[in-house]
Amino acid sequence: MDGTLSTADGPERSLLAPRNVVIVGASERSAWSAGSFANFERLGFEGKVHLVNRNGGVVHGQAAHQSCADIGEPVDLALLLVGAEAVPDALRDIAAAGIRSAVVLAAGLGESGETGQARQEEIVQLARELGVTCVGPNCLGFLNLVDKVPAWSGRMAELTVGGMAVVSQSGATAHTIAAFASQQDIGVSHVVSTGNESMVDTTAMAAILVEDERVRSIAMFMESIRDAAAFRALAHRAAELEKPIVVLKIGSSALAAEIAQSHTGAMVGDDNLADAAFRQLGVIRVSSLEQLVITAGLLSRTGRLNAGGLGVVSMSGGACDLVADRAEACGVSLPVLAEATTDRLAGFLAAFGTSRNPPDVTGAASARPELFRDAVTALADDPAIGVVAAIHVHPTEERGAVMKERLRIHAPAFTHPDVPVILLDQTIATMDPATVRHLDELGIPLAMTGLDHVVDAVGHAMRWSAWLGEARLPPDRVVTALDLAGADRIWNEAESLALLAEHGVPVVPHAHVSTADEAADAASRLGFPVAVKVVSRDIVHKSDVGGVVLGRESAADVRRAFTDVQAAVDCVQGATSEGALISPMRAGGVELIVGVVRDDLWGLALAVGFGGVLVHVIEDSVVRVLPVTQADVHDMLAELRGSVLLDGVRGSKPVDRDALVEAILQLAQLAERLGDSLESIEVNPLRASGSTIEALDASIIWSS
Amino acid sequence: MDGTLSTADGPERSLLAPRNVVIVGASERSAWSAGSFANFERLGFEGKVHLVNRNGGVVHGQAAHQSCADIGEPVDLALLLVGAEAVPDALRDIAAAGIRSAVVLAAGLGESGETGQARQEEIVQLARELGVTCVGPNCLGFLNLVDKVPAWSGRMAELTVGGMAVVSQSGATAHTIAAFASQQDIGVSHVVSTGNESMVDTTAMAAILVEDERVRSIAMFMESIRDAAAFRALAHRAAELEKPIVVLKIGSSALAAEIAQSHTGAMVGDDNLADAAFRQLGVIRVSSLEQLVITAGLLSRTGRLNAGGLGVVSMSGGACDLVADRAEACGVSLPVLAEATTDRLAGFLAAFGTSRNPPDVTGAASARPELFRDAVTALADDPAIGVVAAIHVHPTEERGAVMKERLRIHAPAFTHPDVPVILLDQTIATMDPATVRHLDELGIPLAMTGLDHVVDAVGHAMRWSAWLGEARLPPDRVVTALDLAGADRIWNEAESLALLAEHGVPVVPHAHVSTADEAADAASRLGFPVAVKVVSRDIVHKSDVGGVVLGRESAADVRRAFTDVQAAVDCVQGATSEGALISPMRAGGVELIVGVVRDDLWGLALAVGFGGVLVHVIEDSVVRVLPVTQADVHDMLAELRGSVLLDGVRGSKPVDRDALVEAILQLAQLAERLGDSLESIEVNPLRASGSTIEALDASIIWSS
Repeated sequence: MDGTLSTADGPERSLLAPRNVVIVGASERSAWSAGSFANFERLGFEGKVHLVNRNGGVVHGQAAHQSCADIGEPVDLALLLVGAEAVPDALRDIAAAGIRSAVVLAAGLGESGETGQARQEEIVQLARELGVTCVGPNCLGFLNLVDKVPAWSGRMAELTVGGMAVVSQSGATAHTIAAFASQQDIGVSHVVSTGNESMVDTTAMAAILVEDERVRSIAMFMESIRDAAAFRALAHRAAELEKPIVVLKIGSSALAAEIAQSHTGAMVGDDNLADAAFRQLGVIRVSSLEQLVITAGLLSRTGRLNAGGLGVVSMSGGACDLVADRAEACGVSLPVLAEATTDRLAGFLAAFGTSRNPPDVTGAASARPELFRDAVTALADDPAIGVVAAIHVHPTEERGAVMKERLRIHAPAFTHPDVPVILLDQTIATMDPATVRHLDELGIPLAMTGLDHVVDAVGHAMRWSAWLGEARLPPDRVVTALDLAGADRIWNEAESLALLAEHGVPVVPHAHVSTADEAADAASRLGFPVAVKVVSRDIVHKSDVGGVVLGRESAADVRRAFTDVQAAVDCVQGATSEGALISPMRAGGVELIVGVVRDDLWGLALAVGFGGVLVHVIEDSVVRVLPVTQADVHDMLAELRGSVLLDGVRGSKPVDRDALVEAILQLAQLAERLGDSLESIEVNPLRASGSTIEALDASIIWSS
Repeated sequence: MDGTLSTADGPERSLLAPRNVVIVGASERSAWSAGSFANFERLGFEGKVHLVNRNGGVVHGQAAHQSCADIGEPVDLALLLVGAEAVPDALRDIAAAGIRSAVVLAAGLGESGETGQARQEEIVQLARELGVTCVGPNCLGFLNLVDKVPAWSGRMAELTVGGMAVVSQSGATAHTIAAFASQQDIGVSHVVSTGNESMVDTTAMAAILVEDERVRSIAMFMESIRDAAAFRALAHRAAELEKPIVVLKIGSSALAAEIAQSHTGAMVGDDNLADAAFRQLGVIRVSSLEQLVITAGLLSRTGRLNAGGLGVVSMSGGACDLVADRAEACGVSLPVLAEATTDRLAGFLAAFGTSRNPPDVTGAASARPELFRDAVTALADDPAIGVVAAIHVHPTEERGAVMKERLRIHAPAFTHPDVPVILLDQTIATMDPATVRHLDELGIPLAMTGLDHVVDAVGHAMRWSAWLGEARLPPDRVVTALDLAGADRIWNEAESLALLAEHGVPVVPHAHVSTADEAADAASRLGFPVAVKVVSRDIVHKSDVGGVVLGRESAADVRRAFTDVQAAVDCVQGATSEGALISPMRAGGVELIVGVVRDDLWGLALAVGFGGVLVHVIEDSVVRVLPVTQADVHDMLAELRGSVLLDGVRGSKPVDRDALVEAILQLAQLAERLGDSLESIEVNPLRASGSTIEALDASIIWSS
């Protein structure tokens, strides 16, 4: 991403909201040109659309200039339809005319092999020199629907205007997302494609959009994240403004990662870590286009939700069954209703239905629609309810006339002052124009289709709203960098443990000794039995070369062990001994592996897992990007599949989770302070027994 | 379910395909009556529709009879619109007129409390006496679209006629399913609702439908299975006819189970076991209405698939990414193409695209549609490909004119002789009439919407097709019942182990001894160290009361241990000792828990899990309904999360899986032979070390 986009009054204003534009490479023979030009008229663009064609003449019924310089008045944006080879000249032309923003459509650049990449780099270099910001290349441009600017080179579906912005690397996918949104009567503010992202990526575009007050939510399709710091800043700003960012990021499969790399040249990165980072940043991640649109679309209408679960009303018992299963699968609660609500429901349902959530209004509500309406209102009034899904057929082209009578009676229930009420058609379907018109006439503001997708979206919306309330972003704070002498070479276990201990990570009592006698003395002081381990910065896996002897019970045994472990250095070429480490043996408790490692994209990341059979058998570990909060670490422990081990399985005493979290946090904070000099810290094992938490072994690797 | 439906020529013929019908309770004042009557004309019913109203007169413009007896000619089916209280008289009336089948709509019976249940039982009793088979009560009836019979009491959407039958307990859900199918241009043969299932349940209806050659697949919505044997027979028959049964069964959440029970009075049962049973029976289980329709709809068009993975063609890189992620999530392989195919693709794509699966045809295929067509055909010709998804916008009302030109060039690729080629619109949408008409004109036979749902459906279709090929149903075989003397009281460990050993389950060498001397002799013979356990049928948890002593190293120790363990009987009131069991200690290996337990619905079920920390921590166990095949047990072992433990983690030797499977199969077969007399067998642990498999302890509980 280019630095030129960093100020709020910079070129991005004209980039996404130009007052006038020029199409460079306009030509009667090009379908792209005709399509692009027609879009301006179709959308009702209020500015001027200039055309440039090398040969001049009349194009699309309008006189074309031979160059931008010929236009003779200021232009905000150029839409470059020219081929890759003609881009440099076009850039010089627009720069000469004072145009500072361009959408570059040309393909055959960064996405197609080394030659293309080299040509793209030349273009970027030139653009920077000329002070021009390019979107693309290899993109379809953008549609700014709220300002009626279609800087878009393809065909354009009929789109509904509203509060959801769409940002996508892929132009075709951007259009698919927007078209699907319109099919669901979800209004779109912008449709932005970034293509090869040579200067502006999806994060940068979203950062512009989030500041626009007409944008209520952002739906992003991403193949890769290029700049974690920029993405983090975007997420922080979005949280501040209480605008949700919903992301469909591909790359959970190896094949998708490979395909994506071949288009964009960017790595998709570690998917688990992306998952964790999104969650920590309050970014909602979904896994299909439908979920992307329905989740971002719902939130663009409701904004942040009040606390509470889902209330459901349906005439169909089958629908109630389905919603219950789906809600559980999506982590959405269907709360037990207050007694007052149950009484209120029983007042009109007792004779035939039930008064739980979901209440069973039965087919009786077909003849008496007020039953349905009153059940919806009763639920919406319940303090435990944050959203109501009123499951009912929509007034479609086919069924509109019949359904409208009934819905006219229901309608007042759909405008509750505190709780969004969704008129939910059970299966996902295109909302035809008749449906939209009827709903508008009925004054029903929020209608959606697809029980599964909507319940899932409600779950995301509830979690996001709760996250905002909990202020789960780590507070801004100054991390004092820790500049260590010697943090450029390999550290031995004794040095590593000492650093941990110095910075508040509890470590097992130990002594670093140089002779067999010192070893025996230390063992007597620490208490038998003890472990004796060779200390040598040259040996990575001490036990593999006989460098560890456990359970020594007497001074004599310890002396022998000291000598024995020294032999380990003979097994590793060039290794020298730095003595031995003596520490008391520990029994019982739970062993964890806690590490901080450097990720190329996200920086330092914390991983926590169980040692022993669980890590080998079920790869039971959880990650987070640093910095982490106390609550994050508590969540990590809770997410481990073997989490119940901490509660004391088979008679062992429960682990003090607060103490364990504190120890892990200290380690994480030490890692943060070490910053760039750190490659990884691993504590293996970190032993937890009751409230005794101890690092039994540790290793630190410094960045080279 | 009633026995009267068991023959192919019985009343069910007229039940779902009556030549003529009578509406009992026809009335101008009833919307149900008007709707039902109108449906017959709307669907073009070819038989007579008689009307009965107590008061006679003219109803819906036709003379009504005062009773069925007055009709004066044979009638196949009665549609009873009368209220619950009038059902008995109506049944007597239709029986007197010789009518043997009735659809009963009345609500307020089995689904509404004890009074209603009692009334329903009286009605069923009466119907049996009268020889009338009732569908319902509390149902909407059925639509037989292929024979144009709408015995359906509600409003009816415009439905497309085709090969997918819909069966559902819930009438509203049946209609929702069928309407969604039509929105997806999936043709429906029948829509059947069974309501309270007083005499005919969804299984019985599906059993009728599966025999109809016009039915190509069955989509079932089930709240409960009432008769496992009948369901099993249905599944066997469907497999024989190679017709898929796709089931959406609710009850994965406790709330849904509770709601369902309140409608239907039937328990939803153990969901994990239902999952296992469906899988063993080749029944496809899905979890949403959309998946139900798209999966059953796809298979109604394609039938059983040839072996092979999924080939994908798209102009959008984003779509290729998405399909790759989704395919992996659904267990669908995107196979590597044969070299010949890659060469063929490279022949026309090399300049700009890639030749993997999915090939990247890029936007170039927009101007040159033959690239897309040829890529589709190349993939369909590849021997590794079983289905091709050609991702492309459909020729909709809005985009039809433009898309049609391109699709006309693509069209020949969509009728491949061996491989179904799906024209797949990326997001799920209603296929409007223009789309259906255009596709028909273009000769494109298989068009669907929604990448996620279709890839998921393709996965189900592939697995089902493979399952048919593997003949995974256990062969029909005679199970010789084992009638054991004493199988009515509690057995002790010695008796249990002896029975297992006698029937081919490997057990640890052991001796059942009565005195301390015998114990010492046995220990010497078996080899030290040994375990000494009290034998007493009165003690369930021997170790809790000091009845187990492990690791005795000498004859003297064993003598002492014999005496020690006898004291256990003093801890359990009324317990008497039956001596002790001596067996050699075992070390290393993997410990499993293998049990057969009785389920109320499915009968005996086999459960396999790991002992030790895994069972406590992650509830790692897998179930199957008996009988099981060798392949089933292999699958069970593979499905255990800790499955890699069997491969020898941390230096232990790998377990001989064949030997382990054989031991488990022997146990399962013994359980089958014990049949009704068995409540449960548990082997805990079953120790596996290399090819040594041994039951170390066992308990059998007999049915009381």
